[in-house]
Amino acid sequence: MEFLVRTENRLPPDTPDETRDQLRKAERERALQLREDGVLKRLWRVPGRNATVGLYEADDPAALHDALASLPMWKWMDVTVEALATHPQERT
Amino acid sequence: MEFLVRTENRLPPDTPDETRDQLRKAERERALQLREDGVLKRLWRVPGRNATVGLYEADDPAALHDALASLPMWKWMDVTVEALATHPQERT
Amino acid sequence: MEFLVRTENRLPPDTPDETRDQLRKAERERALQLREDGVLKRLWRVPGRNATVGLYEADDPAALHDALASLPMWKWMDVTVEALATHPQERT
Amino acid sequence: MEFLVRTENRLPPDTPDETRDQLRKAERERALQLREDGVLKRLWRVPGRNATVGLYEADDPAALHDALASLPMWKWMDVTVEALATHPQERT
Amino acid sequence: MEFLVRTENRLPPDTPDETRDQLRKAERERALQLREDGVLKRLWRVPGRNATVGLYEADDPAALHDALASLPMWKWMDVTVEALATHPQERT
Amino acid sequence: MEFLVRTENRLPPDTPDETRDQLRKAERERALQLREDGVLKRLWRVPGRNATVGLYEADDPAALHDALASLPMWKWMDVTVEALATHPQERT
Amino acid sequence: MEFLVRTENRLPPDTPDETRDQLRKAERERALQLREDGVLKRLWRVPGRNATVGLYEADDPAALHDALASLPMWKWMDVTVEALATHPQERT
Amino acid sequence: MEFLVRTENRLPPDTPDETRDQLRKAERERALQLREDGVLKRLWRVPGRNATVGLYEADDPAALHDALASLPMWKWMDVTVEALATHPQERT
Amino acid sequence: MEFLVRTENRLPPDTPDETRDQLRKAERERALQLREDGVLKRLWRVPGRNATVGLYEADDPAALHDALASLPMWKWMDVTVEALATHPQERT
Amino acid sequence: MEFLVRTENRLPPDTPDETRDQLRKAERERALQLREDGVLKRLWRVPGRNATVGLYEADDPAALHDALASLPMWKWMDVTVEALATHPQERT
Repeated sequence: MEFLVRTENRLPPDTPDETRDQLRKAERERALQLREDGVLKRLWRVPGRNATVGLYEADDPAALHDALASLPMWKWMDVTVEALATHPQERT
Repeated sequence: MEFLVRTENRLPPDTPDETRDQLRKAERERALQLREDGVLKRLWRVPGRNATVGLYEADDPAALHDALASLPMWKWMDVTVEALATHPQERT
Repeated sequence: MEFLVRTENRLPPDTPDETRDQLRKAERERALQLREDGVLKRLWRVPGRNATVGLYEADDPAALHDALASLPMWKWMDVTVEALATHPQERT
Repeated sequence: MEFLVRTENRLPPDTPDETRDQLRKAERERALQLREDGVLKRLWRVPGRNATVGLYEADDPAALHDALASLPMWKWMDVTVEALATHPQERT
Repeated sequence: MEFLVRTENRLPPDTPDETRDQLRKAERERALQLREDGVLKRLWRVPGRNATVGLYEADDPAALHDALASLPMWKWMDVTVEALATHPQERT
Repeated sequence: MEFLVRTENRLPPDTPDETRDQLRKAERERALQLREDGVLKRLWRVPGRNATVGLYEADDPAALHDALASLPMWKWMDVTVEALATHPQERT
Repeated sequence: MEFLVRTENRLPPDTPDETRDQLRKAERERALQLREDGVLKRLWRVPGRNATVGLYEADDPAALHDALASLPMWKWMDVTVEALATHPQERT
Repeated sequence: MEFLVRTENRLPPDTPDETRDQLRKAERERALQLREDGVLKRLWRVPGRNATVGLYEADDPAALHDALASLPMWKWMDVTVEALATHPQERT
Repeated sequence: MEFLVRTENRLPPDTPDETRDQLRKAERERALQLREDGVLKRLWRVPGRNATVGLYEADDPAALHDALASLPMWKWMDVTVEALATHPQERT
Repeated sequence: MEFLVRTENRLPPDTPDETRDQLRKAERERALQLREDGVLKRLWRVPGRNATVGLYEADDPAALHDALASLPMWKWMDVTVEALATHPQERT
């Protein structure tokens, strides 16, 4: 099933650049892995913010939670999840 | 998977008693059917309101939508659905 | 550019079935056309509601507005649009 | 009587792992005790968040408060409680 | 147990005076009865609005719901209920 | 005149126990004094939270403010005040 | 004591001009009376809206309520009242 | 001084086309006049909605109110106004 | 023109008393000056909070901003400004 | 395409003056550059706040994001972006 996932990154502005860069690099790698696993299908930036909108697919909400919690930035992220229903127009 | 479902019934206050009674009776029958099908697991009233909180189980959000939309009162209901993840404490 | 579009359908519950059916049929046809034009890319139902989340693509917000306003149900819909930025992970 | 209880865990992201692990272990033990006492009946995770939805049973709101405040994480939790009324469909 | 109950009266402004007066009279009588039964303990007006704040006492949320739903104006009222816990300062 | 007063206590979770205990003791003593002065008439806990709902009586909003600001925890409290009007049912 | 009072006028847009004019004239006369009685001290328009912000003075919230409810438009108005405390800078 | 003005048009969906067209035509004419008077400086559509964002200039909020209230659609519009301060970067 | 100005003072609770007292004294002096300049016309306390409601007069929003930003506490204040339109009842 | 951009500056009040001044100077220089590039078209202050409303033009939301994120204060700013559609009155 598919989920719409919004994230707001609350990493403090005074985080040292080195820490921030390491986190970003690790985040990108984990996201790439989630893409390869078919969990992360699309990702957009909310313009102007350190925030994203993503389209995820997972077996159930618990599996989605585990995927999101595996992101290195997760401890600093405010995440909201919305379960989407397949629209009859797309059921085939 | 399980869902927390809130409903607010917006049936207009000036609905004739007969119509209201027929709708309620049909609603109860359909709810009973959903219980027997294992879709509606628990139902509470929000005290003071014509509103409910329910615990539902369905294969996915589309199946849940179809179950909710099959309720005779659905056209008048404001429904919000929250997909719940099994908590590790309850995974066995 | 891509847009996330949410719609809430406010068609009154006492709309005659015939009117409702005609509107739905016309809506589906227009939506199909927008898919063929590459404007409507994905559509989901918000479970439990007469509401959708859609992924649209259009040249600019004015073109998107014209597409949405061409939907037969538009007069009864509460629509919110969010412009999405391509995420660097997807820029290639 | 039954209560729907939502918790958001606000433990700071920079809490040392050891402290966090000790708190989690103590939390799990206290939660297990509340289950055995029949106070905590169901617990779900809000997917994507360090947050839960729980179904509790207690004699009254004061007894529920004491149970919640006995959780080791309580000082860091934002908790909201909703008292539920038994639905006539379930009164027997 | 005690509850804080807020009501907003949505009776349409164009309700005929006679209907309104009959409803108000019946409302006052029912409220008086609830006072005598020890259910309605205090009642205030929200200044400037057709709205009240009340302190109620009932065995549980279901009993409170039945008391509120017995008010002749109930169909037109938007009611919110908050369960209160006895404060340790008042436990004796 | 009477006021409904809500407080949320924002004392940081990492406040040393000794400081917290001293503040609580001083808070209780000051609250007791306000009860004896007829200012604090009732006090409830919001279940699950470090928060209260109180019924206060004071000559006017300025006198109420001085009473609330005299509480030792006041600097850490988020307080909201609602002025209540005597309901005609209780005017005698 | 002084109150800040906000009003939103919800008179339906399709109200006949004659009814609207009569109501406005009666409203103005009653407001003038409230000024002469020292109850209505200042009145502003919220620009762009059929809404006002007013500074009122009354003995207590019940007296204020009676004054506001005496306005001919009251049945159509959404009114919110905020009790203000004299600031120490103005206490003399 | 400049104002940011948002409008939501609440004209009922079942308004006859002829009435709607007449109102739109009159609205456009009045808006053109406000442009010529230097009151309406820019106008945008909120994509997907029957709503606008506008940049207005007027001597003061009362003059702006009169300009907005002169629009034929005004009775059906929900309007919010925000007074803007010239930014030092643009003060010359 | 007149403005309604709300302030919430976010000075941290652990600010040393000496700093707090110096800021308050400087704040009072600056406010007195703004009164003498005819900018600050009335000031109220929001009961229970470290917050105020004020009635200000200034040539335009930029002049008001400069006056507010000249307050020694401004860096810690959350300020919201509402431009008010003279009501026809008070235009003379 | 044009965007309405709101910023709230969350730079902590206890930031040393020197740091603050350097940031402001760098911010002004970058903003000037964005003006020269035709990205920043208008900028206003929200009176009373360390906040702005701006009118921006960019090829798409991603280009706008890059422009905003290039501001030296960006890490401390809460930014919200609204994509605007050209109004038919201004299409020529």
